[in-house]
Amino acid sequence: MQSGKKGIWPFPDANSLGQDAIAGLVIAAMLIPQGMAYALLAGLPAQVGLYASLLPTAAYALFGSSRYLAVGPVAVVSLMVATATALLSQRHGLDPVPVAASLALASGAILMLMGLLRLGFITHFLSRPVLLGFMGGVAVLIGLSQLPHALGIPVEVREPFALVGELAGNWQSFSLPTLLLAIGTVLLIRLFSGPLARLLQPRLPTAGLIVSRLGALAAVVLGITLALHTGLGERTALVGEIPRGLPSFALPPIELAWLMELLGMAFLISLIGLMESVSVGRALAARDGEDIQPNRELLGLGASNLVAGLSAAYPVTGGLARTLVARDAGAKSPLAGVFAAGGVLLALLFATPVLAMLPRAILAGIILLAVLPLLDFASIRDTWRHNRPDATVALISFASVLILGVELGLLTGLAVSLALLLWRISQPHVAEVGRVPGTEHFRNIRRHQVETRPGLSMIRVDESLQFPNSRFLRDTLLEHLDTHPETRDLVLVCSAINEIDSTALETLEELVRSLAARGIRLHLSEVKGPVLDRLRRAGFPALLAPGRIFFTNQAAFEEIGADKPQQDQSVAQ
Amino acid sequence: MQSGKKGIWPFPDANSLGQDAIAGLVIAAMLIPQGMAYALLAGLPAQVGLYASLLPTAAYALFGSSRYLAVGPVAVVSLMVATATALLSQRHGLDPVPVAASLALASGAILMLMGLLRLGFITHFLSRPVLLGFMGGVAVLIGLSQLPHALGIPVEVREPFALVGELAGNWQSFSLPTLLLAIGTVLLIRLFSGPLARLLQPRLPTAGLIVSRLGALAAVVLGITLALHTGLGERTALVGEIPRGLPSFALPPIELAWLMELLGMAFLISLIGLMESVSVGRALAARDGEDIQPNRELLGLGASNLVAGLSAAYPVTGGLARTLVARDAGAKSPLAGVFAAGGVLLALLFATPVLAMLPRAILAGIILLAVLPLLDFASIRDTWRHNRPDATVALISFASVLILGVELGLLTGLAVSLALLLWRISQPHVAEVGRVPGTEHFRNIRRHQVETRPGLSMIRVDESLQFPNSRFLRDTLLEHLDTHPETRDLVLVCSAINEIDSTALETLEELVRSLAARGIRLHLSEVKGPVLDRLRRAGFPALLAPGRIFFTNQAAFEEIGADKPQQDQSVAQ
Repeated sequence: MQSGKKGIWPFPDANSLGQDAIAGLVIAAMLIPQGMAYALLAGLPAQVGLYASLLPTAAYALFGSSRYLAVGPVAVVSLMVATATALLSQRHGLDPVPVAASLALASGAILMLMGLLRLGFITHFLSRPVLLGFMGGVAVLIGLSQLPHALGIPVEVREPFALVGELAGNWQSFSLPTLLLAIGTVLLIRLFSGPLARLLQPRLPTAGLIVSRLGALAAVVLGITLALHTGLGERTALVGEIPRGLPSFALPPIELAWLMELLGMAFLISLIGLMESVSVGRALAARDGEDIQPNRELLGLGASNLVAGLSAAYPVTGGLARTLVARDAGAKSPLAGVFAAGGVLLALLFATPVLAMLPRAILAGIILLAVLPLLDFASIRDTWRHNRPDATVALISFASVLILGVELGLLTGLAVSLALLLWRISQPHVAEVGRVPGTEHFRNIRRHQVETRPGLSMIRVDESLQFPNSRFLRDTLLEHLDTHPETRDLVLVCSAINEIDSTALETLEELVRSLAARGIRLHLSEVKGPVLDRLRRAGFPALLAPGRIFFTNQAAFEEIGADKPQQDQSVAQ
Repeated sequence: MQSGKKGIWPFPDANSLGQDAIAGLVIAAMLIPQGMAYALLAGLPAQVGLYASLLPTAAYALFGSSRYLAVGPVAVVSLMVATATALLSQRHGLDPVPVAASLALASGAILMLMGLLRLGFITHFLSRPVLLGFMGGVAVLIGLSQLPHALGIPVEVREPFALVGELAGNWQSFSLPTLLLAIGTVLLIRLFSGPLARLLQPRLPTAGLIVSRLGALAAVVLGITLALHTGLGERTALVGEIPRGLPSFALPPIELAWLMELLGMAFLISLIGLMESVSVGRALAARDGEDIQPNRELLGLGASNLVAGLSAAYPVTGGLARTLVARDAGAKSPLAGVFAAGGVLLALLFATPVLAMLPRAILAGIILLAVLPLLDFASIRDTWRHNRPDATVALISFASVLILGVELGLLTGLAVSLALLLWRISQPHVAEVGRVPGTEHFRNIRRHQVETRPGLSMIRVDESLQFPNSRFLRDTLLEHLDTHPETRDLVLVCSAINEIDSTALETLEELVRSLAARGIRLHLSEVKGPVLDRLRRAGFPALLAPGRIFFTNQAAFEEIGADKPQQDQSVAQ
């Protein structure tokens, strides 16, 4: 494609190495709190999020197609992992941690396989409205799941309506300090990304950009300081013990009994993870002209997830926020990701005792702010203005996620969008056309002042002729003839017909015979090359005779009239 | 639509009443052996087939849309009933007879509901290649299922490969008289429909037509005579006792425990039954200009099946062979169906003792000949010549039915055909176009000698812009620009674009920005009215500026060149 791909090679010079190191450490400062927060969201111990930010992040640097993309745990995938592990734990009595690693391994294998088979196009079937609705629904689910932590009310339920009920029922355990911590986190992050960044920007633009992203780190440091030096630890829940050191390498224990269930869930996680990475890539492409190759991206994400599965982590993908940080902090090559992993490594080696003192409410605040942009009602409203069916698909996807859960909700949205596509194909727009005076251009007679000729009907079908609409076409043409009984020649304008499948061809043959029985000749005009080739191979032109295939509408308009001179004068309307 | 609908009213005069009576009795002569044969094929007692030819046939006359359509048991639906009852019997220990009646009741309800909701269009999603393959596979399954009866080898297996194995394993019970009866039946039917009919035709055309269809009746009469007057009954299997008189009316005992399974199977049976009736209707339409309204047809078939379910019968639909008989025998109104039911009633009241003496091998011969035309390899071969993907769908459907069975095979074919449709949409044909000299017509530069202008690329996309292909389009345009770096103006020719959904719109907006960053203007031309309306509502024209939306390709070609006079002279190629 248009932009050169920047791999880790050729190895960068000292200058860009330094810039990558700075960018890497800034990413690490975001990855550490986010990783812990998302692991807890996924129903896993906090260190799993750190493991997911370590080797998988480095692995992407070796195989991925983007210079900036920062891979690690993300909110949406974490919620999907929570749902999947909860299901498998419930059905087969499994521990969530190895199940999460198995999901990463399966997801890595699926992504790799899709990359090798060049199946990246599958993501194109997730349409924008489905994603809008799905992401919005997931944001609501994630937001609700953080309420117990932000309010200090211990509730174990996941189902959104039950959760709200439980919260109301256990109102007496509400903890004001906890809520203040969560609100304080939100305000602090906003302070850093808003006023503080604006203050620095004019004089130190780069520092301003970096500072704007360090609010979460500041909240973490402040929270730990409070917990260490005041009695806050007794009045709110802390993250708790985190094992020091590196994750152990092992194959997670996948069993045949639940392999199929695992693969189904891993496939959906892979799909959404890939979509998220590709979306981040597209956001970058719009800014910098950098492009992401979906099939190479599959290999990079696949490698990341395989490594995640082998290193006691859980499924990862590219996250928008930290990718923008990497770019703004001056990352020059994928090595920035390696440095970021180095930062997480330092935390695992030296900072776990202090990270254990982090109040959970602070992580809840970080998550709440992170998922807020996913709730994009403005885009749904804009879509409603110009495309109601698509807006409806978005709303259905949104509601499905809330009512049916993440997986079934996603599948429902997908099914509805495909059904809508098939419905559109099955009910094509059909217009009678005439010649725009003084041109050789033919347009809809209802929208334009055009010339027509008595006895000649020119009908343009605005869709390929395929099995879902072939019968509709036939009915529409016959209806037209019922209301235009003077028609002797019917020209099917094929300028918008890109394909005639064998079902439609059979219907056309039937139509030729039906029309012949009424003394009406069917003609085609402006048939495209590939379609005409196929019609010729099927012997259709002979069957059409005495009807003809005209190269242009103009030729059809002129020549069909030519053998009936008495009608030639009546060019009118 | 074009032809007036003939209901049972206005009541016919005496002359046409007489013709209907004759036609009805001819249909009855076919219905009686066919009904018994198909009931046995469905794994049900022979009288169930007669019940299915009695009240359901009459009910269609009251509600259906076709003058001729003869409703009753048919081979394909019988095989589907056999599969469904076998499954439900196996899973829930149910008796096949009430299950078959329940299937008819559920199928009737589904068809009625589809008719009331005007969902007849659902059948359009069963494409011709899927039906070709499905019917072929079913024909093979039916043919195999009749082998035990034609060879006199008692085998109970249904699965085709196991069946062949069992037949080979039990070769010693082979009965030559049985095989001779089956072969004799085939030859007798062929004799009647071939030489005998040709002999009569020149002098007595109507008699010839009627006689050509009476071979099965002759075989039945001959078989019963042999069984009554020779020792044949001891050397081959007979139909056996058939209860005399009318079926008892009752609601079949449907239980919640298997209702959902029943509904799924009934839905597929309804779909195939409806397809079969509509196909018969289309065959008639091609001959006589008579047309079938799918939604009224749904009500007629629904009523028939409801009555079948209440009168101890099983699912029915319109059969091609006996419908053609009705037409050839001079049926004038749906009353012919009522007379046919009368003929079956007479048989049930008076002929059951002799029908019990009918050798089963004769019914096997009748079925074998009836399903032979379904095995339409010639059509698959013809399709292969002009449309390989469709022929492949037909072969996959065929193989799926044999390997996975009737229901899963049908669903597989359906899924493959929809996947192919989506695949086609996701990989549209894209062509660079230029002006055909001396005209205002623009065609593919690779297929035609056309004029182009340096710095101007006109690209026609031959598909609506929708989520499966929006990314493909973007990639294709960017690739074109890579190979045509001199391009300053890119015109997207929209004559074949019938829809731009919100996913594609977002991609277009991204594309405008990406191109602007390279100093390239994007324009649209020949945008259709409804598409333009939608683009305007989304505010796209403002975003496109300085790119423009041209009414015609000609205008784009002339006006984009106009502000660069030095290029105007270089119209070339």
